[in-house]
Amino acid sequence: MDKYLERLKNGTLKLHALEKELPAPEAIGVRRAFIEEEAGVKLPKLGSFTMDPSVAVKKNVENMVGAVQVPVGVAGPLAVKGEFAKGLFYVPLATTEGALVASVNRGCGAITRAGGADVRVLRNGMTRAPVFSTGDVLHARSVKEYVDGNFGALAAAAAETTSHGELTGALSVVTGTTVHVRLEFDTKDAMGMNMVTIASERIADLIEEKTGARLVALSGNLCTDKKPAAVNGILGRGKSVVAGVALPDPLVAEAFRTDSATLAEVNYRKNLLGSARAASLGFNAHAANVIAAVFIACGQDPAHVVEGSGTFTTVERQEGRVYVAVTIPALQLGTVGGGTGLDTQRECLSILGVAGGGDPPGSRAMKFAEIVAAAVLAGEVNLLGALAAGHLARAHKALGRGGKT
Amino acid sequence: MDKYLERLKNGTLKLHALEKELPAPEAIGVRRAFIEEEAGVKLPKLGSFTMDPSVAVKKNVENMVGAVQVPVGVAGPLAVKGEFAKGLFYVPLATTEGALVASVNRGCGAITRAGGADVRVLRNGMTRAPVFSTGDVLHARSVKEYVDGNFGALAAAAAETTSHGELTGALSVVTGTTVHVRLEFDTKDAMGMNMVTIASERIADLIEEKTGARLVALSGNLCTDKKPAAVNGILGRGKSVVAGVALPDPLVAEAFRTDSATLAEVNYRKNLLGSARAASLGFNAHAANVIAAVFIACGQDPAHVVEGSGTFTTVERQEGRVYVAVTIPALQLGTVGGGTGLDTQRECLSILGVAGGGDPPGSRAMKFAEIVAAAVLAGEVNLLGALAAGHLARAHKALGRGGKT
Amino acid sequence: MDKYLERLKNGTLKLHALEKELPAPEAIGVRRAFIEEEAGVKLPKLGSFTMDPSVAVKKNVENMVGAVQVPVGVAGPLAVKGEFAKGLFYVPLATTEGALVASVNRGCGAITRAGGADVRVLRNGMTRAPVFSTGDVLHARSVKEYVDGNFGALAAAAAETTSHGELTGALSVVTGTTVHVRLEFDTKDAMGMNMVTIASERIADLIEEKTGARLVALSGNLCTDKKPAAVNGILGRGKSVVAGVALPDPLVAEAFRTDSATLAEVNYRKNLLGSARAASLGFNAHAANVIAAVFIACGQDPAHVVEGSGTFTTVERQEGRVYVAVTIPALQLGTVGGGTGLDTQRECLSILGVAGGGDPPGSRAMKFAEIVAAAVLAGEVNLLGALAAGHLARAHKALGRGGKT
Amino acid sequence: MDKYLERLKNGTLKLHALEKELPAPEAIGVRRAFIEEEAGVKLPKLGSFTMDPSVAVKKNVENMVGAVQVPVGVAGPLAVKGEFAKGLFYVPLATTEGALVASVNRGCGAITRAGGADVRVLRNGMTRAPVFSTGDVLHARSVKEYVDGNFGALAAAAAETTSHGELTGALSVVTGTTVHVRLEFDTKDAMGMNMVTIASERIADLIEEKTGARLVALSGNLCTDKKPAAVNGILGRGKSVVAGVALPDPLVAEAFRTDSATLAEVNYRKNLLGSARAASLGFNAHAANVIAAVFIACGQDPAHVVEGSGTFTTVERQEGRVYVAVTIPALQLGTVGGGTGLDTQRECLSILGVAGGGDPPGSRAMKFAEIVAAAVLAGEVNLLGALAAGHLARAHKALGRGGKT
Repeated sequence: MDKYLERLKNGTLKLHALEKELPAPEAIGVRRAFIEEEAGVKLPKLGSFTMDPSVAVKKNVENMVGAVQVPVGVAGPLAVKGEFAKGLFYVPLATTEGALVASVNRGCGAITRAGGADVRVLRNGMTRAPVFSTGDVLHARSVKEYVDGNFGALAAAAAETTSHGELTGALSVVTGTTVHVRLEFDTKDAMGMNMVTIASERIADLIEEKTGARLVALSGNLCTDKKPAAVNGILGRGKSVVAGVALPDPLVAEAFRTDSATLAEVNYRKNLLGSARAASLGFNAHAANVIAAVFIACGQDPAHVVEGSGTFTTVERQEGRVYVAVTIPALQLGTVGGGTGLDTQRECLSILGVAGGGDPPGSRAMKFAEIVAAAVLAGEVNLLGALAAGHLARAHKALGRGGKT
Repeated sequence: MDKYLERLKNGTLKLHALEKELPAPEAIGVRRAFIEEEAGVKLPKLGSFTMDPSVAVKKNVENMVGAVQVPVGVAGPLAVKGEFAKGLFYVPLATTEGALVASVNRGCGAITRAGGADVRVLRNGMTRAPVFSTGDVLHARSVKEYVDGNFGALAAAAAETTSHGELTGALSVVTGTTVHVRLEFDTKDAMGMNMVTIASERIADLIEEKTGARLVALSGNLCTDKKPAAVNGILGRGKSVVAGVALPDPLVAEAFRTDSATLAEVNYRKNLLGSARAASLGFNAHAANVIAAVFIACGQDPAHVVEGSGTFTTVERQEGRVYVAVTIPALQLGTVGGGTGLDTQRECLSILGVAGGGDPPGSRAMKFAEIVAAAVLAGEVNLLGALAAGHLARAHKALGRGGKT
Repeated sequence: MDKYLERLKNGTLKLHALEKELPAPEAIGVRRAFIEEEAGVKLPKLGSFTMDPSVAVKKNVENMVGAVQVPVGVAGPLAVKGEFAKGLFYVPLATTEGALVASVNRGCGAITRAGGADVRVLRNGMTRAPVFSTGDVLHARSVKEYVDGNFGALAAAAAETTSHGELTGALSVVTGTTVHVRLEFDTKDAMGMNMVTIASERIADLIEEKTGARLVALSGNLCTDKKPAAVNGILGRGKSVVAGVALPDPLVAEAFRTDSATLAEVNYRKNLLGSARAASLGFNAHAANVIAAVFIACGQDPAHVVEGSGTFTTVERQEGRVYVAVTIPALQLGTVGGGTGLDTQRECLSILGVAGGGDPPGSRAMKFAEIVAAAVLAGEVNLLGALAAGHLARAHKALGRGGKT
Repeated sequence: MDKYLERLKNGTLKLHALEKELPAPEAIGVRRAFIEEEAGVKLPKLGSFTMDPSVAVKKNVENMVGAVQVPVGVAGPLAVKGEFAKGLFYVPLATTEGALVASVNRGCGAITRAGGADVRVLRNGMTRAPVFSTGDVLHARSVKEYVDGNFGALAAAAAETTSHGELTGALSVVTGTTVHVRLEFDTKDAMGMNMVTIASERIADLIEEKTGARLVALSGNLCTDKKPAAVNGILGRGKSVVAGVALPDPLVAEAFRTDSATLAEVNYRKNLLGSARAASLGFNAHAANVIAAVFIACGQDPAHVVEGSGTFTTVERQEGRVYVAVTIPALQLGTVGGGTGLDTQRECLSILGVAGGGDPPGSRAMKFAEIVAAAVLAGEVNLLGALAAGHLARAHKALGRGGKT
């Protein structure tokens, strides 16, 4: 090891090149030792992983020095009545924030006792939006006309690059001399960013060739990837999912020590008015918490929590019950590719019965999306319930001290 | 074990109650076995963690069944010229998305060769915004008047609950009969949500008592926590940080095979125009990727990636160089509390020299924030460079085939 | 008159009923006299209008007491190179804000000297979005499926109500139990809100009948009418128009006493970064000013200035020149209906050659839209130029006093 | 006249220079004749104004050719219970959109019968945000530090330019190398843009001098003027006003043929959910309509309707009644300056008792703001009522045909 360390220090060996000379475990060990020296620290725990790093160093990470271990708890059973997910599920949540699993768990309990959550995927389409430069507004408009009038040619170009994905839409947007083309694909069981990017490059080539426009960037932010954006809320990205449950009044009282009217008021003043006044794109309590925890457990891209945070939570009183729903316009996930191939992550997917590709293709990712939406619903139900109960507690206190309320 | 499984199955033992009867490792094992049976799967890898679960089950997770292992790579050295962070750093990134570490690493290289990134924390304040109900608009306005006129009393109430945090601001917003009060605190080295929530409850009690308003929810979404929101972009949340670097033209050419003009154009048409047309609150390329990877490595709350995604990236040509900067209005992090106490996560913090509380209090979280901002800058520099280079490659191809460009 | 005043005072005659008993001029006179007494003021000027009120009281206003006179100036000649508008135009601007006409006029001069503005309408479609209530998320999804799968039936229903308009699109959006259906129409030369509302009611009837959903409001705010909204920026409303002009460097110097680089910088730091930091949906300098002035002059609905304010202004340096463009996603206007039938307003339309319906139908509104976009461009060009010149002046002053700049 | 026409045609006389050689009425006549010839139209009505143009050509318009006459109707009486406006008011509305006055009028009736609208101005401050360029992020931060630490000096600089206005706030925002400083002023009875712009220039001079930053534009869009922007919703611009009224259930039934629950549902699904899904910054039905009509009647800047459209309308059921409120964060208006000096416009202001400056200064604009907010409330109450009634009518129809609802 000292020899390699020496070479790393004197610059004759690059940190990322260690795997070229050593098997993954050793390379990682040397690199960690180097970092330990450079930073003057010891990293025994980071190095005591049990995962097989040989896959990871090829597909998931570079300059690997070890692994963090994120504790995983389960919430459930959660009764889901989806098109693809049917039955009871235990949802794996990787988190370091105490109380999150307990919170989702309590929400699962209420939903399950109420008979389960209805869930449906409303739309499905992964997007990438290359951006082009043109000479003037007439040129820009001609690019738009080409895109709008030649969907078949764009789809054929995409088809040359993949047999899994399929172009399903193309929205062209002109801004002066700039043209964004938001391409949408069905990517089956994969989250699909790579597939989509490769197909988009081919399409961009075609657009350049046919129109004389110049590609400026394969991703032009109208996608919109990993930034909060209204376009995803309006048109969807990945899966657009809705989940709802009717909670009978007695169940609300028993499970949350509050009532339907209070639950509805909390949602109204917090999730609707509060978010409106914050000029927020997310009208929910903590959808991001649940999505982040499932995503980390299940090997999804955690930066996609950003889009997931644009969830709309609604609470409405109905006769003898309260109806709570979450609408997630942009939930990007997959059961193959990315981090889903790592051991612990794949095991988490397997708990939900969604590891690997589905039959027919795409069905497994749909099932996964339905479960995640139901879990988000569980998180919302419980947090709103907890806030509402706090509120009641306060009302009681206020009464005790003769407050105006 | 069979005995416990039996009781779990027949409902005489609750899943979350296992730790009451068994030491953490055994409780986790029984629970995992139960899930294996319920889901009909095997979870050997999830169970083969090496972390000490006894801390985790108390502070970080409930219903623990194991741990996911997320590979950690390092990017660096990254030269940082902050007020608190000075010197070269290797940044730990926990990710399963191949190429991310390599991307940040290449950006670090360019920044370091350019002499390092200037970084400053512009503002500091963690927020929580309870929401109140009033009887009519006159009552609502009187609540606003109370809050606006009694900052000292609010601060004193907060001080009763914590010796670490300090109330530093209170913004009252009336919407008809609803009043949100966005409370802002200095939480020193902690991210501070818990501290802030407890202090906010005390303040809310006071407001109820003095004004007769009724607390509807301790968190009223004007905070805004884990949802994208303009209020955080305008007023900040957690740390507001700016980082910038001047890259000489020759370095741009060598490191990214592009030029300053192209880099600026990519940022203009993608990060500015693209985000503007998407009605996005984030004007950057992939800040969320970097923040997510550092946060997972270092035991931060990963749902705070949402706020971090509201980063503004700017690229401007200057004489003989290009100036690239990132402005992150809402970066919420801490070096104590939350997941920072877990072994592997603390080791990742230690690589950056930011594990534990600082002297003076707060200085360590400031240092951490500066490093994260510099890492985000590295990620932006590199992705813009890569997109710009692709663009140049295309221009070359286009020339070859006689394209208009 | 006294008799009527007496009856108005003692409540035996309603203010709005005067026209039932008296010819319009007399009714207006009595009403004004009543208001004069009630308010204790004299309103001689308000009453000295020369318009024929008999049309107005039937179609444009109720409870009429007189007319305000808004001075109209002209800016031009403005060279427009559109698909429908070709040639030189003098643009009528009704305003009370000094300097506005002069500003647009100077912009027109620069554009015309540069050879004129290229203008194109990119999209055309007026929208109305009824909102429905359903029982649960499954019901909501079935409504979406009905709308998505029965465009022909919806179009046929619309066709029963109008021979002028035509349904061209229907976007269904589910939010929990709520479904919005954003209907889009080609309304030819009319702005078309009335036509669209009537057709939408018929469609809503059909949706209710076929799906069992309940119509909550004919306008559900996803339209979005007279509120700033990203949906209009992304999908367009009314006319989506782009206008651009290339200003040679010498012209910039002569007309605005600045240079192309400065013009581009002003746009960058103000219209792009400033609007981004304000979380604005409008990235322009003062498009609303120009649209408001043309709209008031030409009998358009002035509240539609709101949508027009969502304009994107771009400024880019090109070889030897600077290219300035405006992209207006939502410009709602018409040459028939609304205020276009009033004498002075119709005369203003006639100055532009766009009074009344076109041949073919719709062509006149297209022409009008192109001229308005060119006028907005003129306003932007000039204000950016003025700001840039102020900037240069400051730079000069700074040099004089030895400032760092 | 022919002589002048000849000179205009051969270019020896500029269109805008006519007033230098002729009295206003003649100059306007010649100019109109020129336009008539150029456009090949006749403009007799545009020329038959009765206003005195000599004031207008100096202060309100350039290149005047005539005046449009916009019919004015009155809505009222409207009972207002403000701090400044107390009593019954008839609100003048200049509009060409039939039914608007009737709609507001019906809303006024309901409010007045309910005892009047409570109204309060919550905040007051006109803003202008110059934007500066700096060399790097450290320089940018030093500008922020200067601004944050030297409010007194900035206020003193402003005070040199005006005795009417007063600096009341300064928010500095760094974005990479760019610094925006949002200056806020009390402008008393004036809307104040001119006053504020002049004062801001002086402050900008000071900032340049003290920090070495370079002013790029006096208005940097963080103001935000005449563009929809979250910053105005959160921090306010001009007057922030709230108005509310409690409508007893029987009154709702009688005035609107609907009930409180329906009214609340319309507001919920339309103004809250619809606007949220549209990613709108305005959560109301048609505030812009009312503001536009009052503004045109009263000589206000009609482009400020944009900010006004960011109104929040709330409807809540209370015991035996429904509480409706509007919150207008950014209402910019004045009773002196701008178009308030024109005869017909001043008469409209006089109907409300708000023509000219107040005693104490500022009180008249406050009164005006309160009345406008109450009028907006009237417009909202009525449109929601009308939509709700349509909804009930449909429910009845549906019952008749055996629909599911």
